[in-house]
Amino acid sequence: MSQTSIFMKAGGYYSANTQGAKLVIDRAGHHVLSRLSRMTSAQLERPFSIVDFGAADGGTSLNLMNKIVDELRNSNPQREVLITYTDLPHNDFSSLFKLLHNSPQDESYLKRHENVFAFCSGTSFYDQAVASDSVDIGFSATAMHWLSGLPCDISNHIHAVGASGDEFKAFRNFALTDWENILLNRSRELVAGGLLVMANFCIDEQGRYLGNTGDVNMFDTFNALWKRLVETGVITEQEYHSTAFPQFYKTIDDFRAPFDDPHSAVSKSGLRLQEIYTDITKCPYRAQFDLDSQADAFADAYVPTLRSWSESVFLGALDSSRPVEQRRKIVDDFYASYNELVRQEPSRHSMDYVHAYMVVVKDL
Amino acid sequence: MSQTSIFMKAGGYYSANTQGAKLVIDRAGHHVLSRLSRMTSAQLERPFSIVDFGAADGGTSLNLMNKIVDELRNSNPQREVLITYTDLPHNDFSSLFKLLHNSPQDESYLKRHENVFAFCSGTSFYDQAVASDSVDIGFSATAMHWLSGLPCDISNHIHAVGASGDEFKAFRNFALTDWENILLNRSRELVAGGLLVMANFCIDEQGRYLGNTGDVNMFDTFNALWKRLVETGVITEQEYHSTAFPQFYKTIDDFRAPFDDPHSAVSKSGLRLQEIYTDITKCPYRAQFDLDSQADAFADAYVPTLRSWSESVFLGALDSSRPVEQRRKIVDDFYASYNELVRQEPSRHSMDYVHAYMVVVKDL
Repeated sequence: MSQTSIFMKAGGYYSANTQGAKLVIDRAGHHVLSRLSRMTSAQLERPFSIVDFGAADGGTSLNLMNKIVDELRNSNPQREVLITYTDLPHNDFSSLFKLLHNSPQDESYLKRHENVFAFCSGTSFYDQAVASDSVDIGFSATAMHWLSGLPCDISNHIHAVGASGDEFKAFRNFALTDWENILLNRSRELVAGGLLVMANFCIDEQGRYLGNTGDVNMFDTFNALWKRLVETGVITEQEYHSTAFPQFYKTIDDFRAPFDDPHSAVSKSGLRLQEIYTDITKCPYRAQFDLDSQADAFADAYVPTLRSWSESVFLGALDSSRPVEQRRKIVDDFYASYNELVRQEPSRHSMDYVHAYMVVVKDL
Repeated sequence: MSQTSIFMKAGGYYSANTQGAKLVIDRAGHHVLSRLSRMTSAQLERPFSIVDFGAADGGTSLNLMNKIVDELRNSNPQREVLITYTDLPHNDFSSLFKLLHNSPQDESYLKRHENVFAFCSGTSFYDQAVASDSVDIGFSATAMHWLSGLPCDISNHIHAVGASGDEFKAFRNFALTDWENILLNRSRELVAGGLLVMANFCIDEQGRYLGNTGDVNMFDTFNALWKRLVETGVITEQEYHSTAFPQFYKTIDDFRAPFDDPHSAVSKSGLRLQEIYTDITKCPYRAQFDLDSQADAFADAYVPTLRSWSESVFLGALDSSRPVEQRRKIVDDFYASYNELVRQEPSRHSMDYVHAYMVVVKDL
């Protein structure tokens, strides 16, 4: 999740977004670290290779990568380590390299240790990104809910969580095919005995998902406010109709399916699901509000973080014949209306993360 | 060399800079392509690995990389290919990935072929950038004249080509140590039998170098115009004194030295120099002027390309107590004075490239 819209604020709001994403990575990272000593006991000659899929600027996984390299150095002092970060081609890889190469002494594994090499790849996780049979540890956090495309429009909502009938089926089938592609490409990349740890947005056993964990539903709020702009004549029916996030939140059963079927291409490729469970990471902005009761500060920090990953969808749905300034104003006003809702009833809003944590291994 | 200052102009000036850099790469690339079939005759399982050191945005080497991958596919249709681009951490890697991933069908090897993987590295060529014993072909064009640091100030000039006495010795010794470092790191990275092809700025057998091939000397012009600003009170003696390009142009003897000494660390590491020669690539801006005799258009295209790689040195030498606007104006006026010189006597100016082309192999 992008950190570009974090504003410097007093009261802990500044690092709130980073804290949430980092907490998820630390939880997922536990599954890597607890298995690491078994994986590195063999004194192999080839480099030990780690890939972070959908890494964004790499800041939130840096602490985990440091721990992995520290641990590797304890067991195999001379073994070379390769760390590859993948994301879309337009990702800000320069910020990532600046973080890795220019950080103070102890904050980057590139400074702490010799013989560690970092790389970026602009290949999406829907394709094979690195050489076959080369990856010891694959890792991905909060990235694989993005689909490889948009299956169809959604008639009465802006996200697949509000889709129904044939539209829901189209999204789900598209997402399941995407999921199989993701796994088959990881299977090609992993060495025998390799590990794949993921924290993916999901719909949990109680039907909860990102921004829908009890009270106000974030995506229903987006939808209601966007639909109101049709009723007030600000946007057209067509613009509303063509608004859809290219995302799908899978259930545990969805995630399990290719592993549970012994005849699936994924099972035949040698991938095994060792562990899967869901967990909620509480919204750090809301947690701060619970401490300080500052409704305005909460709204002013909370809505920009929603905006950071949702704005492109709303902007992109507006007709290109509108002047750019007009499009910007519509979207500015849209988020201002969301801000107003949060100020009115702050204790009803919370973008809690709902993740499926998965540990997958490739057969030896 | 950066392409950021190329302006769209009529009469061929637009792509002139790219043409020059590309011509050098095509010449160096010939040495890669002519040896490729011998290198790929073994049907090895491991991926074939190519590294471009100091790649900038990768645009000028794309045609060569396409040819290499086409050729590899002819001989080993299934063998995976890894192509890694290195440059400084702040390099514009996103532009490079957009070029590779988003170009039309036939313009990028990533679109033309399966099982080719591209990576970026923010590690400079003064360090090991990729795993040991992993590189089949190392390549570098017009990059290794940049030193790893600044050895000392230069009293009466702004570039090592005008340094003398102890200052010249300090620059040369620094550059020779840098050169040894470059070669030892490449030697670690290359597989046995691997190839390293470089086109490096040099001082040729007749004492010629970049912008000094007969008439007006570009670096002496920079120096004279910059020194005049001391005389007219625009900049201080101290500012002039602290202006120095962190560059050194080596002679053929300098380049050869570690190879000619059988006891050097480079020779002991197994690197052998197969071929070295110098060649001049005529200034494409000047060539255009020779065709159209448009002095103003020549000056307006020529000076910005000089500015693109030199401005940071002059700006950086100005005292930080000066307001930023004042610093910008000093440098604007400085390049305007260079422009004036070119307009007055266009047929005396020409930034010809002077390169040493080198073919190095690592012992089998």
